[in-house]
Amino acid sequence: MLIENNPQAAARVIPANPVVAIVGATGAVGAVLVECLEARNFPLSSLRLLASARSAGKTVSFRGRDLVIEELTEDSFAGVDIALFSAGSGLSKTYAPIAIAAGAVVVDNSSAFRMEDNVPLVVPEVNAGAMEAHHGVVANPNCVAAIATVALAPLRAHRKIQRLQMSTYQAASGAGYEAMAELNDATAAAQRGEEFEPKVLPHPYAFNFFSHNADIEADTGYNGEESKVIAEIRRIFDQPALPVGVTCIRVPVPRAHGMAITVELDEALSPELARDLFANAPGVKVVDDQERNYFPMPVDASGQDDVLVGRIRTDLGDPSGKSLALFVVGDQLLKGAALNAVQIAESLMQRAQ
Amino acid sequence: MLIENNPQAAARVIPANPVVAIVGATGAVGAVLVECLEARNFPLSSLRLLASARSAGKTVSFRGRDLVIEELTEDSFAGVDIALFSAGSGLSKTYAPIAIAAGAVVVDNSSAFRMEDNVPLVVPEVNAGAMEAHHGVVANPNCVAAIATVALAPLRAHRKIQRLQMSTYQAASGAGYEAMAELNDATAAAQRGEEFEPKVLPHPYAFNFFSHNADIEADTGYNGEESKVIAEIRRIFDQPALPVGVTCIRVPVPRAHGMAITVELDEALSPELARDLFANAPGVKVVDDQERNYFPMPVDASGQDDVLVGRIRTDLGDPSGKSLALFVVGDQLLKGAALNAVQIAESLMQRAQ
Repeated sequence: MLIENNPQAAARVIPANPVVAIVGATGAVGAVLVECLEARNFPLSSLRLLASARSAGKTVSFRGRDLVIEELTEDSFAGVDIALFSAGSGLSKTYAPIAIAAGAVVVDNSSAFRMEDNVPLVVPEVNAGAMEAHHGVVANPNCVAAIATVALAPLRAHRKIQRLQMSTYQAASGAGYEAMAELNDATAAAQRGEEFEPKVLPHPYAFNFFSHNADIEADTGYNGEESKVIAEIRRIFDQPALPVGVTCIRVPVPRAHGMAITVELDEALSPELARDLFANAPGVKVVDDQERNYFPMPVDASGQDDVLVGRIRTDLGDPSGKSLALFVVGDQLLKGAALNAVQIAESLMQRAQ
Repeated sequence: MLIENNPQAAARVIPANPVVAIVGATGAVGAVLVECLEARNFPLSSLRLLASARSAGKTVSFRGRDLVIEELTEDSFAGVDIALFSAGSGLSKTYAPIAIAAGAVVVDNSSAFRMEDNVPLVVPEVNAGAMEAHHGVVANPNCVAAIATVALAPLRAHRKIQRLQMSTYQAASGAGYEAMAELNDATAAAQRGEEFEPKVLPHPYAFNFFSHNADIEADTGYNGEESKVIAEIRRIFDQPALPVGVTCIRVPVPRAHGMAITVELDEALSPELARDLFANAPGVKVVDDQERNYFPMPVDASGQDDVLVGRIRTDLGDPSGKSLALFVVGDQLLKGAALNAVQIAESLMQRAQ
């Protein structure tokens, strides 16, 4: 058990104007966490930006002021009410228990605790109730799992989901700032006709796509990213045996993930009704203009809170007629990471009041 | 009926050193047809390059000589034994009957005749026998259908295919030279931070992906590209009722198509056996290095005759265990178009001897 059982943690009172810390403030997700807190007028009394010694002393603009980044140490969490972690599994495992001991509630964007029994894995639109029973940490899901579950939630509210088949079109941002820069640099080199040696990702990224570079698990042949997507969707939907097949592919776009999803339901649901359900669902925007051939695209999803859902149709691959096909695109840094974490924090505060 | 019934056409003797014509010689596929004929030492006695009046007089290098492009007219086919058409459906409908009447056998790369009863739709590795009964035209399939069927054929030889689910990662070349140029120009503009108005494709192409721009069919919600893929796979496999679901997405790569495929079989087939079947199949190359995380990619498939197959694993989305998941990448201009057409011509010549 990585997080000690501590049922009292869920009863901690978070003040109406909490002190918030961001661990990993200089990363791609960290930067968007700062933007989200500002854009959503998060009622914090002060914001502490924590990062490695290398980044300490740099400044980040927040609400018109320059905040100085501090080095992350064991003493960083004194007085912190909510700590948003986005600095990788290793640092989460080391510092989340320290933050909890100091009195903070942790929202963790890494995969460190996502499958721990005493750590809720939450997409607020889908399973906010799971937060009731946290022990100091709420886990923020993998980006594909977060975007997929918020898109599928409106269907799940009306039908039982029996099976999922997904193929992803994943952006550079999932591998951080460095991968976004590499996409840009590799593309520029290709356009100049120059060689480019990949440093961040293991394969050429300019005008190319490739299977997600997470390690392949020998027993299944699935890679680590795909296994996370499967396990986390099952956990968020509380359907531990849900059959999910997924192929994760990295494509050369900066920060929005796409996914072609086929969802088998226990009973047929017409595309028209599905479209209505999506149109009335939180966190989802229908982009499904068949006449103008206008559907979800990264250029439209990037920088947008809502997950775009389109190509809504009855799947011709399922002779029973009980499956729908969808194409979904969501901002990897927003709903896939920072926005969902801030929404968890907002939800924690509402629950604590 | 677009092509007149003419069972004698199949018995036409094609000389050992035929006169070959290419209709649409200046297009992206036309240029690769010329390359394929040269690379494969096609035993032609002379090559005629036909195109619009606008291109007439230009020259194209073939076997060390410059061939002059002629204007396509009703008189272009006198003495032609094999006519390779790649100039769009409209020109095929007009000129294929003229070419047949002049004594040629037509291999047509357009979608004009693909679903005609008296026109075989052929991927030589899969259904070369269908050519026996042509009436002057053999149709070359849609690029996704050709690449998918050559990849699936080795499985189909051992098991019955019961269901297919596919998501595509399609290159610019499917929309011609102009789309390939637009990908390049749009990307260069994006890197300079400049606006770019798409002219060839309806959506921004730089660092973006979008649903294939073929018109959406109101009754199904599938687009024209997807409908072609479904109908043509069924026809090539001679399984008119095969359930096929597909989502076609255009991604920013120049000339190789990818596809994530889940194939349900009538009985389980181990990934190990599948890998052996692929390794021994014509037109297929296994790229499935789980340890090095090396799988099919456009940068490797481009310019290569073989279709690359990898990520071979039992699909976790099918609780019966009877489905395999694959990731396939093939050159859209080669196996997806020109190469397959030249292979059809080669096969026609073998059959005529």
